[in-house]
Amino acid sequence: MDSDQPSTGDAPARDAAATRRRILDAATAEFSESGLAGGRVGRIAERARANQRMIYAYFGSKDGLFEAVLAEQVLQAQTAVVFDAEDLPGYACQVFDFYREHPRMVRLNLWQALERPDLLKSLAPVERAMADKVAGIAAAQAAGKVSPALPADRVLDLVLALTYGNVAQAGNAAAWTDDQRTALAIAVARLTAPQ
Amino acid sequence: MDSDQPSTGDAPARDAAATRRRILDAATAEFSESGLAGGRVGRIAERARANQRMIYAYFGSKDGLFEAVLAEQVLQAQTAVVFDAEDLPGYACQVFDFYREHPRMVRLNLWQALERPDLLKSLAPVERAMADKVAGIAAAQAAGKVSPALPADRVLDLVLALTYGNVAQAGNAAAWTDDQRTALAIAVARLTAPQ
Repeated sequence: MDSDQPSTGDAPARDAAATRRRILDAATAEFSESGLAGGRVGRIAERARANQRMIYAYFGSKDGLFEAVLAEQVLQAQTAVVFDAEDLPGYACQVFDFYREHPRMVRLNLWQALERPDLLKSLAPVERAMADKVAGIAAAQAAGKVSPALPADRVLDLVLALTYGNVAQAGNAAAWTDDQRTALAIAVARLTAPQ
Repeated sequence: MDSDQPSTGDAPARDAAATRRRILDAATAEFSESGLAGGRVGRIAERARANQRMIYAYFGSKDGLFEAVLAEQVLQAQTAVVFDAEDLPGYACQVFDFYREHPRMVRLNLWQALERPDLLKSLAPVERAMADKVAGIAAAQAAGKVSPALPADRVLDLVLALTYGNVAQAGNAAAWTDDQRTALAIAVARLTAPQ
């Protein structure tokens, strides 16, 4: 709570930050439910108790707002999950848990895949984080901790694919089960264990 | 070609079948591009050189048409791909090839996951085909041809998850690469090989 309310700083800047926050929260809900084309700026304004003019002033366009929402979600996921190239089953389970607690994130990823297929890749923090993870996996392969049977970038892709599981059920991550989580850990271990 | 044009039968029935076919083709294109909420019956009618009244007469509603499109696509995939529980890497590669040649199918699956998450499961032919595959995998496990490390239904889910790969790239299956296909075969083998 306190972090949203700095004790110094002028009131207009504080109001602006709070409005921006409300817009992002409202947009996250709206885009997660209805996607980019289906999401309505009018509804976002209403949910955020802001006006549409403000949304365009802050984010430029509906596309700009969608991009801001995705970038924020990705940063949140990156902060919540600790990547350890030498424990890929553990990493997969952390991502699984994060998605299960944040099913909107999975839906945003799916909408993105359909409506802006190059957006996620094009975000600098995503690109950097992916490159770091691939380098970490390559190092773990060189150290004999991860099987070298697959190129490091494929390992990352396929571990994440296993985490999403059957795409037909990815739209409702809140319903993912503990059995799925157990199977995920076993599957990632089989995929990546050395020899 | 000939199969669409039976040599017997009356002209009105033939016309009706041809119109139905054109509507389904137009709807497949429209829904694959824009999804269920975003797909427009007016555009489908235009593409199909039919009128909207006809679409509602044949399919009941936009939802009914979406369901008919998905059911047809699934049947087409089931016909094109031969399932062999004792060669799951080969099965995965066939599904991969089918999707790569029919990227619309993947997009329809993704839209379905977002907009009608229970639709695919609820289609009787899908349910039957899935149950048959799970039974086949369980038998292959009992025969020592597939690892028993995971329950048979999870094996099927995870093999399909690997086939889709990184969800962020699933929206454009036409761009899937041969390297991905090679990695898929290796990954499924590691996941499912006995011992």
